[in-house]
Amino acid sequence: MPIVSYDRLVTLVRDLFIGYGFNEEQALIIAQNLEDADRHGIASHGIQRMRLYDQRITNGYIKPNEEGRIVHEMPAAALIDGRHGMGQIVGTRAMRLAIEKAKKVGIGAVAVRDSNHFGTAGYYASLAADEGLWGYASTNSNALLVPTHSAKPFIGSNPIAVAVPTSRGRFLYDAATTTVSLGKVEVHAKLGEPLPGDWVMNTDGTIDRDAQDVIDNVTLKPGGRGGLTPIGGLGETNSGYKGYGIGAVVELLTAALPLGVLSADVHGQSIGHFFLALDPDAFGGREATEEYVADFVDRLHALPSVDGSPVLVPGDKEFAAADRTDAEGIEVDEKTAREVEQIAARFGVEVPWAHDDADERTAQVAVA
Amino acid sequence: MPIVSYDRLVTLVRDLFIGYGFNEEQALIIAQNLEDADRHGIASHGIQRMRLYDQRITNGYIKPNEEGRIVHEMPAAALIDGRHGMGQIVGTRAMRLAIEKAKKVGIGAVAVRDSNHFGTAGYYASLAADEGLWGYASTNSNALLVPTHSAKPFIGSNPIAVAVPTSRGRFLYDAATTTVSLGKVEVHAKLGEPLPGDWVMNTDGTIDRDAQDVIDNVTLKPGGRGGLTPIGGLGETNSGYKGYGIGAVVELLTAALPLGVLSADVHGQSIGHFFLALDPDAFGGREATEEYVADFVDRLHALPSVDGSPVLVPGDKEFAAADRTDAEGIEVDEKTAREVEQIAARFGVEVPWAHDDADERTAQVAVA
Repeated sequence: MPIVSYDRLVTLVRDLFIGYGFNEEQALIIAQNLEDADRHGIASHGIQRMRLYDQRITNGYIKPNEEGRIVHEMPAAALIDGRHGMGQIVGTRAMRLAIEKAKKVGIGAVAVRDSNHFGTAGYYASLAADEGLWGYASTNSNALLVPTHSAKPFIGSNPIAVAVPTSRGRFLYDAATTTVSLGKVEVHAKLGEPLPGDWVMNTDGTIDRDAQDVIDNVTLKPGGRGGLTPIGGLGETNSGYKGYGIGAVVELLTAALPLGVLSADVHGQSIGHFFLALDPDAFGGREATEEYVADFVDRLHALPSVDGSPVLVPGDKEFAAADRTDAEGIEVDEKTAREVEQIAARFGVEVPWAHDDADERTAQVAVA
Repeated sequence: MPIVSYDRLVTLVRDLFIGYGFNEEQALIIAQNLEDADRHGIASHGIQRMRLYDQRITNGYIKPNEEGRIVHEMPAAALIDGRHGMGQIVGTRAMRLAIEKAKKVGIGAVAVRDSNHFGTAGYYASLAADEGLWGYASTNSNALLVPTHSAKPFIGSNPIAVAVPTSRGRFLYDAATTTVSLGKVEVHAKLGEPLPGDWVMNTDGTIDRDAQDVIDNVTLKPGGRGGLTPIGGLGETNSGYKGYGIGAVVELLTAALPLGVLSADVHGQSIGHFFLALDPDAFGGREATEEYVADFVDRLHALPSVDGSPVLVPGDKEFAAADRTDAEGIEVDEKTAREVEQIAARFGVEVPWAHDDADERTAQVAVA
C-alpha cells in the first residue's frame, strides 16, 4: 500500500485536474480539498474519489473551468448558480464570498444550486476559521435518510459542518444528519464486518446489520425501500424525528432556498450547498471569543469519564489523524492506487509511488 | 380542570405581568409567548411556568421593564446585553432586530447574553416566518446534556428552532438537542409511568427508565452525575456524539459568541440566546421558495408508511394541537390553576375560571 506525503498527493491531484482542463489555481483548490480529507483521516472523501470525479468529468456531468454565476446579491447574502461546475470550485468561491460579506457587515450567507459533490463540508467551514471567522457549511446529496415512519429514503445524508477558531486549536464539527454516512457502511462491508449499531433500515422496516446486504440491496436502489436512519434512530422512541427534522432543515437550506434540486431528485447531479460566515468581531470580539471557546474545550476535556474513554471535542479525532499523517504520510489503498495510475497514465503524469510500487511488484514476483 | 380560550388566557397573563410592573406592551408580549406554547400543546412552556417566573421576578433575578442594551451593531449583526430582563422581552427585541437587518441586507444575526428563560424557541423563529422570512432561534439553559463518555452533564438542553413559511402552512422545527427535554421526563414522573426510551443516563453510566428516580436523583443536582442523553444516545455506537456536537455548537452560539455564561455555570440565570433571520428574497425569492417548500412538505406527507403511522413534517403535531385548542379551549391543570389564583389574588386580577371553579367546588361539596 503506497504511503505518500500530503504535499506529494496535492501535487499529484493538482496535475490530474490540470489534465482535465482546469486551470492551475482551480486544480490546486480541488487537490487541497481532497487531500485535506485524506490528511484528516477521512479517506472516503479523499483521493479514493478520483474514479468518481473522473467518470463525472468524462461524461460531462461536471464542467471543468466553470466557477458558477452570481444570480442575486445583497450586502449580507448571495445566490450562486453553480452551472454544473466542480463542487470544490463553486463551493470555495461561495464560501469566500460569504467570508468577504461577513467581514464587512458581520455575517454572510451564500446559497448554491446546480453544483456537484464538494468533498467534506468541514473544509469550507474551516476556510472561515482560517481567517478568524466562524464558518458553517452544508450540502444535500442523494436521498439516503428515511424520514420517521417512512418506508423509503427522501432526504440526503445532508452533513452539517461548523468551524470555530480558538486561541488553542480549533472546534470542528462535521457530520451527516443520518446516524452514519454511507461511507461508514461501505468500510464495514469491505472488511466483512457486521454493522454494530442501528444505522440502516431494511426494506421491511427492521434494522439491517449485514453491511454487504445493505450495499447490495438497501440504499441507492431506484424505487428502493429502506435507507439510513436519522440521528436518534427509527421511530419516535429515541426521537429519531429530531435527526430527520435537522436533515430536513439542511434540505431546505441547500435545495429550497436556492431553488435547486431536492436530494430525492438529484441522482448525483445538481447538488446544492449553503454557507455561512460570521465575524466574532460583530459580537463578543475575536480575541475574547477565541479564549472563551478554548476554555470551553479545556473544560470538556477535563470532564470525568463514565466508561474509561476520554471526553472528546468535535474535531479531536480528525486533528489527531492530521498529526499522524503529517509525521507518517497518507496511505493510499491498493484499489485506489491502481485507479489513479490509470488516470495518471492518460495525462502522462507520474504517480509518486511509481518507483516504490515497481520495486514491490518485483519483490512479489521474486517471492512467487 | 379549567378549560379557557387562548384570548382569555392572554388577557389574564398580560394583567398579571402588568401587576409585576411591566408596561402593557411588554406584558402582552410575555402573555402571547406563554399562551402560544399552551395553544400549540406545549404545556411545559405555557401558563404552568407562572410560578417559576413569579419566584424569579419576586426575588429580583428577572428585572421588569428591562429591554436590554445593544452593545455592538453592524449592518447584519448585533450583540445585546439582556441586563437580566425577562427572556421574552429581550428575545423578542433581538429577533425583531434580526428581522429588520435581514430585510435590509439579506440576513440578520443577533446574539444575546445575560437574559432569562425565553419560553419556546419556536416562538421567535415564527416571528420571522410571520413576516415571510426564515427564522432560527436557540438558547442555552442549565447543564443537562451529558457529553459522550462524560460522567456528568455540561451542556444545556439547547433547543434549536427553525421556522420556514410556505404557501400552504408552515415548517416549524423546535426541539432540544438532548434526546428529550426534562419536561418530558417530568410528565412521565407525574403519570407514574416508566420512561420508554434511552433518555437519561443514571449516575453509574447506565440508562435510567424510572422517571421519578430521575427527577429525585439524577438531573439538576449540584455536583451530580448522570443527566440527559444527547440525540443518538450514550456512547458512540449510534453516534450520540452528533447530538452532543450539535448541542455544543448551540452552546457556542448562545454563550461564547455573546461572551455570556455557559449552561454549566448558568444556574437558571444569565441565559444566552442566538437569533437568525434570513430573507428568501435575497436567494430564490419569497413566492418561489414558499411554493417549493410547500411541495417538499406535500411529498413528505405522501411517502408510504413502513409501520402504519403517517409520515409527519416538523410542526404538524403542534399545528394540529392549535386547531384543537382553538376549537375546544386550553386545559389548565389543577395545580397550575391554584398557583395562578394565588398570584392573581395579589394583584386583584380575576381568573377567567373563577366562576366555573366556584360552581365546581360547590358541586364537589354537595356530592361529599
